[in-house]
Amino acid sequence: MARGRRPTEEVRRDVLAAVGRMLLTEGMNNFTVERVAAESGASKVTIYKLWPSKGALALEGYFTTVEPLLAFPDTGDLERDLRSQLHAFVDLLTATPAGTVLRGLIAEAQGDPVLMDAYRSTYSGPRRQLAVDRIEVARAAGQVRADVDAEAVVDQLWGACYHRLLIPDLPLGSGFADTLLRHVMRGIR
Amino acid sequence: MARGRRPTEEVRRDVLAAVGRMLLTEGMNNFTVERVAAESGASKVTIYKLWPSKGALALEGYFTTVEPLLAFPDTGDLERDLRSQLHAFVDLLTATPAGTVLRGLIAEAQGDPVLMDAYRSTYSGPRRQLAVDRIEVARAAGQVRADVDAEAVVDQLWGACYHRLLIPDLPLGSGFADTLLRHVMRGIR
Repeated sequence: MARGRRPTEEVRRDVLAAVGRMLLTEGMNNFTVERVAAESGASKVTIYKLWPSKGALALEGYFTTVEPLLAFPDTGDLERDLRSQLHAFVDLLTATPAGTVLRGLIAEAQGDPVLMDAYRSTYSGPRRQLAVDRIEVARAAGQVRADVDAEAVVDQLWGACYHRLLIPDLPLGSGFADTLLRHVMRGIR
Repeated sequence: MARGRRPTEEVRRDVLAAVGRMLLTEGMNNFTVERVAAESGASKVTIYKLWPSKGALALEGYFTTVEPLLAFPDTGDLERDLRSQLHAFVDLLTATPAGTVLRGLIAEAQGDPVLMDAYRSTYSGPRRQLAVDRIEVARAAGQVRADVDAEAVVDQLWGACYHRLLIPDLPLGSGFADTLLRHVMRGIR
């Protein structure tokens, strides 16, 4: 079969794309390796050879797919860049099953240190760093006060959104993102 | 037996105190209705008559016990009051098993709508309201800008702490609480 000779990286990419598509349209319900095989054209044997578990496959497919949706712009205007990234993030969490996928992964990770490590090294750590880097560029440009803690700003923007995602006392939406940003920008510039 | 004639409210209070003591010293490990019965002097039958499930018992015992530890002061100085409450909150989460108990409850609630409703009505909702009320008093006293959203401030202080509790990319501590407060106070006053 021609398929069997495809380079591993090409197979990986197709499988991850299929996983991301499935998770962003249907969430974790009915997410099985059988269906990933059918959707991607890879065999179950190949999939099990490339990923240690269904959870690891879901995690990587999800994060690979949302990464371009959560790109961090640098137009030179910090507030504008934070706003467009926060809106994209909130839209992803509220307008697709991504919010439910993340709630499930974060809940599962509380009792599973291996999954928590994977979550942090694959997703939350690198995403936190992108935000911190953008804030540091703004600090170097004199747009942010010298004594601001960029890491804490991440918790006060994205962390505040995760708080409403996980404990939904009040809704998460773009109006909320704008309010968070208004409070933060006044405090850090 | 004299015990059997104790008023129900007294039995409830003793059971909840025993549950809170157990959860704050040992966490959820080995938390059983048998041990609660032994520690409180109430019978298992009585406990099952008063609470629908072990989870409901843990939730109420935990929240009843932490409530006085998380009191919301009003000394007339908003920053000072927020600081002392945030420090008490962070200490509880980091110096006792309370952080682990909360991580477990929040994780469990993601897949259990009944537990989520109980968590919100028993704990997160009322605690959010206490914080909002304190901020509104400060606004009425002219210490907070008119256009500040008190609910979003809650997400930017306590929510930011929950973010580090649930996704521990960086540590939660009193220094972090002070940084959050510095950013927020500059933005809202």
